[in-house]
Amino acid sequence: MIEEIMRNVKEKRPLVHHITNYVTVNDCANIVLACGASPIMADDEAEVEEIASICDSLVINIGTLNARTIESMIKAGKVANQLGRPVILDPVGAGASTLRTDTVFRLLNEVKFSVIRGNISEIKTLAHGNGDTKGVDAADADVVTATSREAAVALARNVSKKTGAVVVITGATDIVTDHKDVFFIKNGHEMMAQITGSGCMLTAVIGAYCGANHERVMQSTVAAVVAMGLCGELAYHKMVATDGGTATFRTYLIDCMNKMNETTLKAGMKIEN
Amino acid sequence: MIEEIMRNVKEKRPLVHHITNYVTVNDCANIVLACGASPIMADDEAEVEEIASICDSLVINIGTLNARTIESMIKAGKVANQLGRPVILDPVGAGASTLRTDTVFRLLNEVKFSVIRGNISEIKTLAHGNGDTKGVDAADADVVTATSREAAVALARNVSKKTGAVVVITGATDIVTDHKDVFFIKNGHEMMAQITGSGCMLTAVIGAYCGANHERVMQSTVAAVVAMGLCGELAYHKMVATDGGTATFRTYLIDCMNKMNETTLKAGMKIEN
Amino acid sequence: MIEEIMRNVKEKRPLVHHITNYVTVNDCANIVLACGASPIMADDEAEVEEIASICDSLVINIGTLNARTIESMIKAGKVANQLGRPVILDPVGAGASTLRTDTVFRLLNEVKFSVIRGNISEIKTLAHGNGDTKGVDAADADVVTATSREAAVALARNVSKKTGAVVVITGATDIVTDHKDVFFIKNGHEMMAQITGSGCMLTAVIGAYCGANHERVMQSTVAAVVAMGLCGELAYHKMVATDGGTATFRTYLIDCMNKMNETTLKAGMKIEN
Repeated sequence: MIEEIMRNVKEKRPLVHHITNYVTVNDCANIVLACGASPIMADDEAEVEEIASICDSLVINIGTLNARTIESMIKAGKVANQLGRPVILDPVGAGASTLRTDTVFRLLNEVKFSVIRGNISEIKTLAHGNGDTKGVDAADADVVTATSREAAVALARNVSKKTGAVVVITGATDIVTDHKDVFFIKNGHEMMAQITGSGCMLTAVIGAYCGANHERVMQSTVAAVVAMGLCGELAYHKMVATDGGTATFRTYLIDCMNKMNETTLKAGMKIEN
Repeated sequence: MIEEIMRNVKEKRPLVHHITNYVTVNDCANIVLACGASPIMADDEAEVEEIASICDSLVINIGTLNARTIESMIKAGKVANQLGRPVILDPVGAGASTLRTDTVFRLLNEVKFSVIRGNISEIKTLAHGNGDTKGVDAADADVVTATSREAAVALARNVSKKTGAVVVITGATDIVTDHKDVFFIKNGHEMMAQITGSGCMLTAVIGAYCGANHERVMQSTVAAVVAMGLCGELAYHKMVATDGGTATFRTYLIDCMNKMNETTLKAGMKIEN
Repeated sequence: MIEEIMRNVKEKRPLVHHITNYVTVNDCANIVLACGASPIMADDEAEVEEIASICDSLVINIGTLNARTIESMIKAGKVANQLGRPVILDPVGAGASTLRTDTVFRLLNEVKFSVIRGNISEIKTLAHGNGDTKGVDAADADVVTATSREAAVALARNVSKKTGAVVVITGATDIVTDHKDVFFIKNGHEMMAQITGSGCMLTAVIGAYCGANHERVMQSTVAAVVAMGLCGELAYHKMVATDGGTATFRTYLIDCMNKMNETTLKAGMKIEN
């Protein structure tokens, strides 16, 4: 299944519309290209509806939110909804400011999301209306441990029920749920938290995978989470072998997505449910 | 000739003003530095005229166009025109939205461009007022093949006649024309389409080359297209040798521009006319 | 002392708020992570006060200044001042346009800065109200030579006296002064001027170091300048060893910050006073 989803991305080359932050936008564009899709970044209110209408999916990322782009996000989201295209939300830093938290709730109110991906603090904010984020990172108190896994699943399920979206909480173990099924994904490496953009890039890849597999949002999301995590593992090993650091790791992470194939993916995936 | 143009960039270190998108802006700044020039990115209406006036050339790229920067592009363009400095246009995604298409025509109406560089779909939009772009990539139907080369040249000539600019259509074979002469450049590698920014970076390098060679816009453009294409080839070989992927390729692409010298350029150039 | 400052960054993982330019923002985020701190980029007027209040320091960089973010800089700066958090200024391109020069003076008037870091032309602009910058680079006439070092120190002291900030002039030899003491730092490599963002990244690292060491702004600044310069040296050697160019150098620069430890720092630092 996962291999077929990946193959579809390479064959259909979906066009993925991003309204995203200016910190990691280049990485997002490059990883979307690396996995075989085609990115377009467009955020002006005057064009987002038109751009959304020619694209296969839409990724909304609130990483450097500003007044100008909030209306664009809502307009693009509504068009994508009308056309039945998957819309993915990355609520970067929800809980860290009233603007971000309020905007996330406004987005959830006006746009139907297919997938929402965040860290535990961000998803907690979506569940409870507030959270203790450490800026754009998960608060230490929120980090998912073996013992708190049940609570994290309950949180993700809660948000999934309220929104109808597949919900992803990324951390040491990633949780993907559509409130019925739950998948635990153990791929990934802690180096991913030492570069900016690991989360944003995963959200972008989810957008690419869902863009090529409209009818299989849950499986596409699982596949994207696995692929990204596996890239993290492979990039780490290559980084160590070449005596590199975090910037080298970032380069290899995108390289690995570019070189990922069905055999590697199948051999490396660590999914439990 | 081409070697002298390249040498002038390194000796004069022209200052290149960019009003550009936030996706590939870092790559553009780095490749301009790599080829020996000095970039300055400035897009606020309140300063663009002053910045344009201290610079040797101006690059306008509509990649993440927004209402705020359109006026800045026009103001900066007019100042550069008055001072006789080359102005380069990259009509990213022209044809993909009304905003982009309309803005390109407004820019062409109010600013005189020395060089326009785009993919076939974008240049078709400039010729006909519309085009079938695939987001920011060339539409499949538009891709230049051996048999359609004549049509592509006619298109480029048409735009060159209408605008007075040297027109570049990049693709498997790059076409450069000032409506009298035509050059076909066979340098380059298909990996360049698998990273974001190859086109934007070429446009930036054209800005740098023209900035150091005001009187030789056509030759500077040909030199920049050759240099960038050759970097693509060299970067590809080094990427393969180090078992890298797209992100490694991007790094090597800029590295190669930094290490390009007259001997390498002369030995590697593949120009026909 | 310097080792303890570096250790505090890794142990306290300070949250560093950046209002910065979109050219080098990704590099700034990554180098802040590489040195052990946590970056958050937020520039909308509606959230900057809240974000500043949860952060350990604030970095203001005017690299792609625009009307929208000037008010944000002032609001965030005032909150950080009230809470006693270090505020760092990078006056990119001050002197290159009236907007930049005026904004810098407005910022100095309304916000108390702990550290100001610029090249000689930018600091001259702060001292005299104008300067001859070459865009965002130091003007050739301004470059600090052995014979002009005294004049540069006088300039830095003057700005330090007027503003109460520790002032850093970066160049072949970096000067750090709080108008009483002066440190000359001979770490660094000329390759750093051949990539975009060396200066911005240093300012970001100063923000991280000061964020973890509120009571020792002068020493933290010296430590950051040394660490960054040493990374430049180490990255250069690794670049040569792998036959790389400027983009490889940029990758290694961030790698080296990620791998920097107290032993390397102590062994490599070149400080005179």
